[in-house]
Amino acid sequence: MFIPAIKHTLQGALSVAVLMVSSASFVQAADEKRNVILIIGDGMDDQQITIARNYLKGANGRLLLDAMALRSTSHILTVEDAVSSSPVYVADSANSATSMATGQITSIGRIATSAGEDKDIITIAELAKAAGFSTGVVSSASVTDATPASFIAHVISRDCENPTRMSVAGDNPSWVNAELCKTDRVDNGGAGSIAQQIALGSTDVVLGGGMKHFQPRGADSDKTLLKMAQDNGYQLVTNAAELMSNKSSGKLLGLFSEHTMPTRLRGEDGRIAERPLPSLLYNISSDLGSVVLPESMRCEENPDYAGMTSIKQMTDAAIKHLSTKADRGFFLMVESASIDKASHKRNACGSIGELAQLEEALASAQKFAADHPNTLILVTADHGQAAQLIPNPKAGQAFYTPGHIARITTPEGQIMAINYATTEAHSEKHTGTNVPLFANIEGQGRVPSMVTQPEIFNIMSAYLGLIP
Amino acid sequence: MFIPAIKHTLQGALSVAVLMVSSASFVQAADEKRNVILIIGDGMDDQQITIARNYLKGANGRLLLDAMALRSTSHILTVEDAVSSSPVYVADSANSATSMATGQITSIGRIATSAGEDKDIITIAELAKAAGFSTGVVSSASVTDATPASFIAHVISRDCENPTRMSVAGDNPSWVNAELCKTDRVDNGGAGSIAQQIALGSTDVVLGGGMKHFQPRGADSDKTLLKMAQDNGYQLVTNAAELMSNKSSGKLLGLFSEHTMPTRLRGEDGRIAERPLPSLLYNISSDLGSVVLPESMRCEENPDYAGMTSIKQMTDAAIKHLSTKADRGFFLMVESASIDKASHKRNACGSIGELAQLEEALASAQKFAADHPNTLILVTADHGQAAQLIPNPKAGQAFYTPGHIARITTPEGQIMAINYATTEAHSEKHTGTNVPLFANIEGQGRVPSMVTQPEIFNIMSAYLGLIP
Repeated sequence: MFIPAIKHTLQGALSVAVLMVSSASFVQAADEKRNVILIIGDGMDDQQITIARNYLKGANGRLLLDAMALRSTSHILTVEDAVSSSPVYVADSANSATSMATGQITSIGRIATSAGEDKDIITIAELAKAAGFSTGVVSSASVTDATPASFIAHVISRDCENPTRMSVAGDNPSWVNAELCKTDRVDNGGAGSIAQQIALGSTDVVLGGGMKHFQPRGADSDKTLLKMAQDNGYQLVTNAAELMSNKSSGKLLGLFSEHTMPTRLRGEDGRIAERPLPSLLYNISSDLGSVVLPESMRCEENPDYAGMTSIKQMTDAAIKHLSTKADRGFFLMVESASIDKASHKRNACGSIGELAQLEEALASAQKFAADHPNTLILVTADHGQAAQLIPNPKAGQAFYTPGHIARITTPEGQIMAINYATTEAHSEKHTGTNVPLFANIEGQGRVPSMVTQPEIFNIMSAYLGLIP
Repeated sequence: MFIPAIKHTLQGALSVAVLMVSSASFVQAADEKRNVILIIGDGMDDQQITIARNYLKGANGRLLLDAMALRSTSHILTVEDAVSSSPVYVADSANSATSMATGQITSIGRIATSAGEDKDIITIAELAKAAGFSTGVVSSASVTDATPASFIAHVISRDCENPTRMSVAGDNPSWVNAELCKTDRVDNGGAGSIAQQIALGSTDVVLGGGMKHFQPRGADSDKTLLKMAQDNGYQLVTNAAELMSNKSSGKLLGLFSEHTMPTRLRGEDGRIAERPLPSLLYNISSDLGSVVLPESMRCEENPDYAGMTSIKQMTDAAIKHLSTKADRGFFLMVESASIDKASHKRNACGSIGELAQLEEALASAQKFAADHPNTLILVTADHGQAAQLIPNPKAGQAFYTPGHIARITTPEGQIMAINYATTEAHSEKHTGTNVPLFANIEGQGRVPSMVTQPEIFNIMSAYLGLIP
């Protein structure tokens, strides 16, 4: 519901925040920069990490994640929108990213707005900006997608990505609920779509996919959102070469694909998990017939990824851009989005490749932190995902999944069986499990052995001196 | 394969161990006792923990596990038996318990014997005993089951639980491979079944289920295994009253049920997860028909559990018995076995109740450690399990699992949907995920942020001064 008295009070909240921050006594001296790099593996639960480790490093190998100084766990909290005290046991990326961005528990689909009341909630990126830090978001999804959006925009629903998506008359996919976006429409006194809020915003670096969300005309404007962003001081880059050679110290908007970036890896010949095929006789008795399991496969380079800007390239560029400013330091969120998106599609190799991309981004962050010790690196997931590493049936064993299975031949020559069986529908479901939270040595004494997901906001804000 | 030259060399290994231990310079002074309590939640991965937390404490609640000082993760390693350098990506309770008990990686089904070579591997309980510590195992499964057995016996296969199970002519369940047990038979120069090894062994306290495995006559003997155990100095107790009132300081064998102890909780009226039922029309088009999901249910007391000895009672008795001896301290392994066994049966309430039992055992261990600070408490799982916390479909949402679903009404009045969908067979499968490892404050500086499962043996052995 749209409650004018408390909605769109962000400007006021920011002013208060600036006052609070200005008068607070900071942990760090004024001339000592502090930085936070938050890396989110969307859907990167322990199953995904184990699967990726087995493929990328071997069963006895170690990921960079595994070697991080601290390991904790994040307990995810979601509430019903109608009755905000009632828990919901499985989150989506919007409400869980909102938890990390704002420290508040909200309902499914919401982007930095409160459950029920629909009030904007100030984010760590906004608090940091107001306090004199630089800020950035990097994602392999559209920059308007739920995870990045929750740090730099405020809307009732993740569906409200661009002006078309907010129009009931718009040419939109069937899953978009444009009606729900009404209260955020500019003609209703709202701040408009996620893309519009980004275009008119003050985030220093915004890098990812989602060009198509900036091509429509802005609400209440003759200009496209791209033009509005440029008029607002953003330099636009659209490929890796432009990104790497960019020398501008102004605001930077990088849009490297139409929507979600393609995954780096895919299954052999584009295969994903498939259904086992029991023979007709097997359906009568398991003694009479047999079950044909999908052929095993290797992962291969995804041809659609050719020429794509990597998460590492975006992370390197963002860190370089943010760290050279004369300010108090920076807050940067980096998302590897398609660990989740590939798992929704039962594309095991896709998820593995995007976890490899996350590892590269982590290496970049660690390299920076080695030279800039006042840098807190946190790596976590927003929620669990469907994929399960299950036993690979041996010859003669008849058991098989009721869902879909991908049987991946690993570089060490063994078969790893990955099960997707949360739904008969086309898109696998999230799970409600706790997810890992990793920290570099700066997390010592700051990251306890377990946190609720909103407490990640508290840890980061305290590190930057944004909260007393 | 049976290799006489290297098989059954345990006695020799123990002698060497005693010498090594005797000559080693210990971490602790001679008059300072040290204790290790290892609590294993069989199949207790992060999904199980999250599900149990939601039910037992509410979404915002905290388990005792959650409040432990240290949280790490255990990376499970398994190998092929034929080619012991080849990894297998999903473990069973035998090889994973062997990892923790011995520090060695082995193959599926093995009880403290090596992959391929079939050599006995000395366990931490044996090393501790030889070095002057008391030792105990507690389990809600049969004491001959894979997890407890791996600490106090050595056989080629977990199937070799009692003399009948080792006989191809025995009246055995179809899944028992008695032929495989041949090399361990007494008439082949082996040490006999798991039950026989326990009856003739030196473990100070053995408490759990599995009376039926001690009722057959011992191999090469006219006496039952129960009688052999008593002749070997074991006092036998068979119910909680006898256990609690026992004043003997000699060896203690408690067998409280015929086989696995019943779970404390069950689903309403004994229900477990069920299949959703799509209507005939739904199978033609999801627009035409509908899917009937199983009714939601509460968990209830399992009537079969009435009068059963609890894991807490066994743990209290074991700690009391072991801690009053004039020795160097003790090693105790406590297993909550049916988090796993109930999950195999798609019995979500069963798993929840056994995680509650594990929490009670942990409370007992923590109470002891509060008064005896030289006590390392570790809590972990042996492997992951099938259960997944998935979204509960709302009215009008048609997605449904291809497997079985339990929809549990939690005490906070919300529905928690638990999915079981790893197999069409009757018993759900393990998963290969990393599992949590928790430690009390004694783990500080000893438990890194990630361990391989065999390293748990190293941590415990080093704490007790058993390895240099």
